[in-house]
Amino acid sequence: MATSEQFVEVPQLGVPRFTSPLNRSDEPNAEIAAFVPDTAYVCSSSEVPATGPQLYFQKAGPRRTIYFDPPRTRAAIVTCGGLCPGLNDVIRSVYLELSMNYGVRDVLGIRYGYQGLNPQSGEPPVKLTDDLVEDIHREAGTILGSSRGEQPAPVMVDFLEAEKINILFCVGGDGTQRGAHSIQEEVCRRGLDIAVVGIPKTIDNDIMYCEQSFGLVTAVAVSQQVLDCAHAESKGVPYGVGLVKLMGREAGFIAAAATLASQDVNFTLVPELPFSLEGERGFLPVLLDRMRKRRHAVVVVAEGAGQHLMHADKIEHDASGNVKFQDIGPFLKQKILSYCEANGLKIDVKYIDPSYVIRSVPANCEDSMLCDQFARSAVHAAMAGKTDVLIGRVNARFVHVPISMISGKKKRMSLDGELWASVLAATGQPKKFS
Amino acid sequence: MATSEQFVEVPQLGVPRFTSPLNRSDEPNAEIAAFVPDTAYVCSSSEVPATGPQLYFQKAGPRRTIYFDPPRTRAAIVTCGGLCPGLNDVIRSVYLELSMNYGVRDVLGIRYGYQGLNPQSGEPPVKLTDDLVEDIHREAGTILGSSRGEQPAPVMVDFLEAEKINILFCVGGDGTQRGAHSIQEEVCRRGLDIAVVGIPKTIDNDIMYCEQSFGLVTAVAVSQQVLDCAHAESKGVPYGVGLVKLMGREAGFIAAAATLASQDVNFTLVPELPFSLEGERGFLPVLLDRMRKRRHAVVVVAEGAGQHLMHADKIEHDASGNVKFQDIGPFLKQKILSYCEANGLKIDVKYIDPSYVIRSVPANCEDSMLCDQFARSAVHAAMAGKTDVLIGRVNARFVHVPISMISGKKKRMSLDGELWASVLAATGQPKKFS
Amino acid sequence: MATSEQFVEVPQLGVPRFTSPLNRSDEPNAEIAAFVPDTAYVCSSSEVPATGPQLYFQKAGPRRTIYFDPPRTRAAIVTCGGLCPGLNDVIRSVYLELSMNYGVRDVLGIRYGYQGLNPQSGEPPVKLTDDLVEDIHREAGTILGSSRGEQPAPVMVDFLEAEKINILFCVGGDGTQRGAHSIQEEVCRRGLDIAVVGIPKTIDNDIMYCEQSFGLVTAVAVSQQVLDCAHAESKGVPYGVGLVKLMGREAGFIAAAATLASQDVNFTLVPELPFSLEGERGFLPVLLDRMRKRRHAVVVVAEGAGQHLMHADKIEHDASGNVKFQDIGPFLKQKILSYCEANGLKIDVKYIDPSYVIRSVPANCEDSMLCDQFARSAVHAAMAGKTDVLIGRVNARFVHVPISMISGKKKRMSLDGELWASVLAATGQPKKFS
Amino acid sequence: MATSEQFVEVPQLGVPRFTSPLNRSDEPNAEIAAFVPDTAYVCSSSEVPATGPQLYFQKAGPRRTIYFDPPRTRAAIVTCGGLCPGLNDVIRSVYLELSMNYGVRDVLGIRYGYQGLNPQSGEPPVKLTDDLVEDIHREAGTILGSSRGEQPAPVMVDFLEAEKINILFCVGGDGTQRGAHSIQEEVCRRGLDIAVVGIPKTIDNDIMYCEQSFGLVTAVAVSQQVLDCAHAESKGVPYGVGLVKLMGREAGFIAAAATLASQDVNFTLVPELPFSLEGERGFLPVLLDRMRKRRHAVVVVAEGAGQHLMHADKIEHDASGNVKFQDIGPFLKQKILSYCEANGLKIDVKYIDPSYVIRSVPANCEDSMLCDQFARSAVHAAMAGKTDVLIGRVNARFVHVPISMISGKKKRMSLDGELWASVLAATGQPKKFS
Repeated sequence: MATSEQFVEVPQLGVPRFTSPLNRSDEPNAEIAAFVPDTAYVCSSSEVPATGPQLYFQKAGPRRTIYFDPPRTRAAIVTCGGLCPGLNDVIRSVYLELSMNYGVRDVLGIRYGYQGLNPQSGEPPVKLTDDLVEDIHREAGTILGSSRGEQPAPVMVDFLEAEKINILFCVGGDGTQRGAHSIQEEVCRRGLDIAVVGIPKTIDNDIMYCEQSFGLVTAVAVSQQVLDCAHAESKGVPYGVGLVKLMGREAGFIAAAATLASQDVNFTLVPELPFSLEGERGFLPVLLDRMRKRRHAVVVVAEGAGQHLMHADKIEHDASGNVKFQDIGPFLKQKILSYCEANGLKIDVKYIDPSYVIRSVPANCEDSMLCDQFARSAVHAAMAGKTDVLIGRVNARFVHVPISMISGKKKRMSLDGELWASVLAATGQPKKFS
Repeated sequence: MATSEQFVEVPQLGVPRFTSPLNRSDEPNAEIAAFVPDTAYVCSSSEVPATGPQLYFQKAGPRRTIYFDPPRTRAAIVTCGGLCPGLNDVIRSVYLELSMNYGVRDVLGIRYGYQGLNPQSGEPPVKLTDDLVEDIHREAGTILGSSRGEQPAPVMVDFLEAEKINILFCVGGDGTQRGAHSIQEEVCRRGLDIAVVGIPKTIDNDIMYCEQSFGLVTAVAVSQQVLDCAHAESKGVPYGVGLVKLMGREAGFIAAAATLASQDVNFTLVPELPFSLEGERGFLPVLLDRMRKRRHAVVVVAEGAGQHLMHADKIEHDASGNVKFQDIGPFLKQKILSYCEANGLKIDVKYIDPSYVIRSVPANCEDSMLCDQFARSAVHAAMAGKTDVLIGRVNARFVHVPISMISGKKKRMSLDGELWASVLAATGQPKKFS
Repeated sequence: MATSEQFVEVPQLGVPRFTSPLNRSDEPNAEIAAFVPDTAYVCSSSEVPATGPQLYFQKAGPRRTIYFDPPRTRAAIVTCGGLCPGLNDVIRSVYLELSMNYGVRDVLGIRYGYQGLNPQSGEPPVKLTDDLVEDIHREAGTILGSSRGEQPAPVMVDFLEAEKINILFCVGGDGTQRGAHSIQEEVCRRGLDIAVVGIPKTIDNDIMYCEQSFGLVTAVAVSQQVLDCAHAESKGVPYGVGLVKLMGREAGFIAAAATLASQDVNFTLVPELPFSLEGERGFLPVLLDRMRKRRHAVVVVAEGAGQHLMHADKIEHDASGNVKFQDIGPFLKQKILSYCEANGLKIDVKYIDPSYVIRSVPANCEDSMLCDQFARSAVHAAMAGKTDVLIGRVNARFVHVPISMISGKKKRMSLDGELWASVLAATGQPKKFS
Repeated sequence: MATSEQFVEVPQLGVPRFTSPLNRSDEPNAEIAAFVPDTAYVCSSSEVPATGPQLYFQKAGPRRTIYFDPPRTRAAIVTCGGLCPGLNDVIRSVYLELSMNYGVRDVLGIRYGYQGLNPQSGEPPVKLTDDLVEDIHREAGTILGSSRGEQPAPVMVDFLEAEKINILFCVGGDGTQRGAHSIQEEVCRRGLDIAVVGIPKTIDNDIMYCEQSFGLVTAVAVSQQVLDCAHAESKGVPYGVGLVKLMGREAGFIAAAATLASQDVNFTLVPELPFSLEGERGFLPVLLDRMRKRRHAVVVVAEGAGQHLMHADKIEHDASGNVKFQDIGPFLKQKILSYCEANGLKIDVKYIDPSYVIRSVPANCEDSMLCDQFARSAVHAAMAGKTDVLIGRVNARFVHVPISMISGKKKRMSLDGELWASVLAATGQPKKFS
C-alpha cells in the first residue's frame, strides 16, 4: 500500500567465512545467540495505509558466519560531540561483546573524539580492559573524552593503518557520522580491510531512521524534574510563571516528552512549531489570558524554538558545524514580562536553564538497556563485515542503516503524530499561535 | 509474506454521529488532535519474512465523529488486581481527557475494584474532580483502591444502569478483562448503550498484543537497584552469592530487562526457561564453577521460574484465579548452599526478596508518558463507541484489540528474541542448563 | 570557662494554667510525650575552652501545663520569602500537632505570605483539613503560596483580631522574623492575647542560633548532583572547566557542604572568603596551574562570593530588602576564559547555574524529619504561651530563641571551623587566594 | 551541674615531634587546616541540668605536631562486619588524606576483614592508589570486602610487623573494635610503634559516644521509600495492613527515624519498647481498633523488637558473636491475621522485608560528608600518635573515644528523648502497649 518499496542494501567488506564463536559447537548448549540472517528485514512503517515510501532495513544481530577472525582483529571506539547519557554504557558493552563473546583481544579507546585519531592534535589511545570498564556504566560522561570538529580523513586512516585497526566504532551524531563516512571513503580508496560502524548519539533524537536514540529518556527524566521545580515555583508566588529552556536545536522531542511526563506544563514551544508572539491568538495574549484565569503557568521552550523571532543578523557555527542559536530563554522571559506589564498584570517569571544538567548524568534504567543493545548490534555488524553503516532503530528493532542515508538530514517531530497530539491534549494549548 | 493476514474487527456500539469537540470549529486553531480514521491500521509484525500470521489492528486515537454526546455522558473507571506503577496516572488522564478535552461532566471512580460495582460488598463511588486528581500522578498505588476477584455481571450491570453510566473503563490484567467482557455481554443482553473499554495492567507484561504495559519500566528500574545491592553484597564477602527473586509469574520480562539494565547479573532464571539443577551442565554445577573461578555471583530468579523443581503436590489459586506459586527463592537458596557445601566450597548466600517494593512506587518518567497515552487512547475509543475492546500496543503504536482476543492467553518472552539474546550476551550464561 | 554566661529569657504571654492534653490522665499509657520543664536549658557551645560567651537557651518541647485552651484556640500559619524544601512538611506537621495531638479545631493557612494578612492586597486564608494536608509533604513548594516584602503591622493585627486568631506561626527568614517581631509589638501595644512563633526558613542556613535549618541538606543533595554533572563535563573535553554557581548570598554553607559531598570539586569560592583573581597566588593563576597539570577542574562559586570584584556602582535591593547581587557566574566564566587564553591555554568552560532547581524540590528524608520536629516544637512553644520567639537549634537540640536576638545578624560559615577545614582537605585548594 | 565530671584521657604512642605537613611554612597561605590542640575538649551533654555524668572528650582534628614521619609511614585499612553505606567513602578519604595531605606513600587495603590480616585464611592486601579509589565513593559495598569474626591477635600483629605497618584503621562495629583493642594490646605487649584507630561502623547506630554513625541516614532514606510502598499497599486494598521489618537488632533508630521521615506510619515497634500483643491495651486490640475506624494501617517493626514474645528456647550466635534473632516479621504477620480474623475482621497484610536493600546502597549526600569527616579525623588522630582510640561524635563534633570505653556496651534509643517523642507524635500510637 506504500507509494514505493525498497530493500536497503548495506555495504559489506567481503564474503564472511569464519564461523561465529557465538556458536561454540563443542558445547552444544553454549550457543548464546539466535543468529539473524542477512535476509531478515524490518519495514520502516508498520502503518496501513503507509504515508510514504516503505523501506526495508536489514535486521541487526549476530551472524552465523563472520568476516573478521576474532583472534586477529583489532578494534577501536571513539566518542564525539557533546555528552549524552549512556556513552560509557556503549563503550563498555562494545568492549565486552568483542572480548567476552567474540574473543577479540585488542580494543582501543580513542581519546577526545576524532582528535585522538590525529597524532598531531591528540593523545594516544588507551587499551580497554575488564578492570577499566567494570563500573563505568554507572558514570556520567565518557571515560574516553570527546571533542567537536573534524580531522582530515587521510590523517585518521594513516593512524588506523599504523595501529593495525580493523574495526572502528564511531559514536556520535550527524557530523560524526559524516566523518565516519569520509574515513570509510578513504579506507575504500586505499583498499583497506577496515569496517567503520556508527552508533547514533543524539540527545535531541534527531537522527533519521533511529526512532529512539540512547540518552533521550534519561534527559527527559531529568527535564521532568526541572519542570516539577518550575511548577512549584509558579504556584509559590502570586501570578508566577515558571519558564524552562530545554535542549532541542532542531527537534523538540525532549520538550515534548518532558511535557507529557510532567503533566504540569501549560505551553510547550518547539522548533517544529512556527509561532507568533503578539498576534490576536499569539503566544503572549494566550498566556496572559491563562494568567488572569488561573494565576500561574509553566512554559517550556526548546532551545531551537522561535529563532525566527530574534532577527538574527548573522548565523554563527560551532566547531562541529552546527548553527549557534541565539538564546530564546531570556528573550522570551523579557517578552512575557513586558507584555503582561503593558497589559496591566504584574507577574513573576522564574526562569530556569538546566543546560548541561540534563545530559551529563548516568544513563537511567531504560537507556542502560538501549545502550547495551545498540553496542552489541554494532559489534555484530562490524564482525560480519558490514561497513559505512549505522545502527538504526525502526519499529522497536535494531537495523542496519547505510550512513549515506542519514547524511544531511535531521529527523524532526511530526506535528501530526501521536507524541505531539499527546502534548496538545496534556497542555490544552492551541494547535497554533497565530 | 506472512502465512496469513487478518484485519481485526472492533465491536462498535452504533454509528457515531456527534462532531468531536476536539475540533472546535469556531476557533480554527484550537483543533488539538490529528484525527485518526477507523480505516487506519497497524500491522502486528514489522519483520520480513514474518514468522506467523500478520494481524492488522485498528489504530487508536481521536475520531472526528463520536458516538457519545459529551454533555450527556457519564463515565466510570475501576482499577482491579495488584498494584502497578502508574494507576493514578491512568485515572488522572482518563478523567482529564474526558472533562477538559471532551467536556464530559461526570466521571466516577469505583472503589476497590469490581467490589465497588456491587452495592452489597463495596463502597459507593467517588466523583472525580480537578482538585482530587491534581497531584495523584506523583503517588504510588491507586486512589480508588483495588481488589481481586469477580462479582456477578448482572449485579454490576444493575449498578451501571442505576448510576446511568455510559462508559466503563476497566484497568486490570487478564482476569479483569475477562470480567470486563462478561459485563459487556450482560450489557449486550440487555440492549444497553454502555461502552466497556479495557486498559491493560500487568506488571509482568504478559498481556497479548501489548508489547509494553505501563509500570514495567518502573518495576525494572527498581529491580535494577535491588540487583545493584545484590552485586555489592556478593562482592562484600568471600564467596558471596547475591540471590534475588523478582516478580514474573509466567513471563520473565522484569527479570530479563533488569538483568540487562544492571549488567552485573551472572545468571537469570525465568519461567520460560526450563532448567535442571544438578545435571552435568545444570545450574548448580555451572554456578559452582563460576564461584571457584570468580568468587562471587549474582543470580536472579523470577517467581514463576523452576516451579517444576518443587514437586507441587497441589495447586492453589488466589482470589483472582491465578495459580499460587511455591516460593522458588528460599528453595533455590537452600539448594545452592547445600550443593556448594557438598562440593567443598563454603559460600555465603544473601537472599533478597523485594516483593511489593518494585510495584508500589510512583510511575517513573517513561511510564508517566505511557500511562497518559494509554488513558487518552481509551477515552477516544470509548467516546467513539468502541466497546469490549482493550487498548493494545504493537510496533510502538496504540491499537484497538478486542478483549476476546486476549482472553485465556498470556504473552511470554521468546527465548529466540532480541531481549533474551541480550540477556545471554550480558550474563554469559549458557543457553540451556541441562 | 566561657568569657561570660547568660540564661536567655523567653517572652511569655501569661501564666499557663491548662493541663496539656498530651497527658491524657484517664488513659494512663496514652501520655505521648516526655514533658520538658521551662527550667531545662541547652548551652550554645559544647566546646571547652569556649571561644565566646556561653548562652543557655530554653529547651523546646511540650509543657505539662499550657497557656491556651485548645478547644477555644484558633491558629494560623504563614510562609514567606523564597521557596525552600520542606515548607509543606512544616505546614502539615504544625496542623497535625495542633489538631490531632492538642485538639485545636481551627487552623488557617494564610495565602501568599504577609500579603495574606492584608485584606487589601491578598486572598482570604484557607482552612486546613486532614484531607488537604494528607500528602503535601511529598510536594515541593508551599501549598499556601509565598511572597516577599512587608505589610503594615497594624493592618496585619487588625486581620488577626478580626479572625480571632490566637497563635500565628511565621515561617521565613531574617526579614520574615523582623515582620513577626513587629506584629508581636503591635499585639503587645494593643494588649492582645496572641502568640507569635517563628520557624526559621533559610536555604542559605544563615540564621543565628540555628545550626541547621530545614531544606539545607536537600539543597546540598541536589547541588551535589549538579557538581557531578560539572565533573563529567569537565572531563569530557580536553581542558574542560566545570563552573557551577550555587545559592549562598552571605553564607557559603551550600557550596561548602556540596563540595564535601561531591569530592570532585577543586575550588570552592564562598562569600566568607575574600579572594583576589590575578595576584601572584590569586585564583586565576592557581587554576591555570592546575589546568596545565591535571587538564580539568571543577569550580564552585556561591552567588554572594566575589562581589567586591565586580565594582558595583550602586547597590539594589529586592522586595524583601535583601541586597541584589551582581552575577558572579558569567563574570567568572569570562575571567577564566580570557586569563587562560592570554596565557596561551585554550580551555573549554561549561557553566551551570541550577538556580531554583536546588530549592523547589520536595524535602529529602532528613529534612522531612527536621521539618516535623521544628513544626511540633513551634506548636509546643505557642500552646505554652511563648511569644516573639523562634525555634532555634543548638548542639542538635531544639531551643527557644527570642526573635530580637537574631534580628539584623546573619550567621556565616567560620573559615576556622570543621566544615571549611574539610573543604580545604577535600579540594586541596590553598587557604587564601592572594 | 552534672553529677560528676571527667576529662577522658586518650592513649598516645609517644611524644609527637614532627611538624605537620598540613602547615607548609614555605607557602604561607597553603596551611590547609585550623590545628586543634590536645587541650580542646567537647562535653558529652549540652543540657542543663545534666542528667548523668558529664564527660569531656578530646576534640578530633589535625595536630600541629605529629608522631609519625609521613615519608616513612605505612598505613593499612580494614573493613569488617556487615555492609554499611559509606564504607568506600571512608576508604577513599582515609587514603586521600594520608597521601595527598600528609604525603604518606604506602596505604594498604586489607581484604575481607580481619581474615586479610591472617595469611592462613586470607588474601594479600592491595596497595591503594589514586586510580583505584577515584570513583569508589559512588559505589555501594566495600572494595576491600569484609567478613565477620575474629582472628588471633598474635597472628594479626605478626602480619603488621611483617608488612612494616605503622597505622591500622579498623572500620567496624562493636566486635571489630574489640578486635582492634586486642591487636593494640598485643602491639603494646611487643613494644611496637603501631597506632590502631577505629572508625565506628554500625547501621543500627548503636555505638556509644557516637551520636550519628555513617550510613544511618542513607539506610533511613531507603527505609522511608519502603514505608511509602507499604502505605500505598495498605491503602490499595480493603482493610490493608502494610507490615515492614527494618534493621535494628538492639536499637530502633532506623525504625524510628524512618517513621518520622515517612509520616505515614501508624505503629512503630522497637527493641527498646517492651510491648504485649493481647493485653487490654496490647498492640493487637489497638491495631484492630484502628483498622475498624480507618481501614488501613502501616506497621514498622525493628528486627530486634518483640523477641520476648517468641519464647526462644535457645539463643544462637553468628560469626561475629551477635545473637541470632528469631524472625519477628512473619511471626507478627501471623498474629495480626489470626487476631483480626478471630475478631471477625478480614484483613489483608502485605509483608515487606527489604533486608539488605537498605544497607548495600551508596552513601547519600549527607553520609558522604560524614564519612569524609570521620575518615580524615581518624587520619589526624593516627598521625598524631593516638592509639586504641575510636572516632566518636558528640554534640555534632568529632572526638577521640578510647576503645575501652565503648566495649561491651550498646547505645540504645531513649524512650524519653526527642526522637521517640517525635515518633509518638507522628504515629499517634500510645506510649505503651500493655
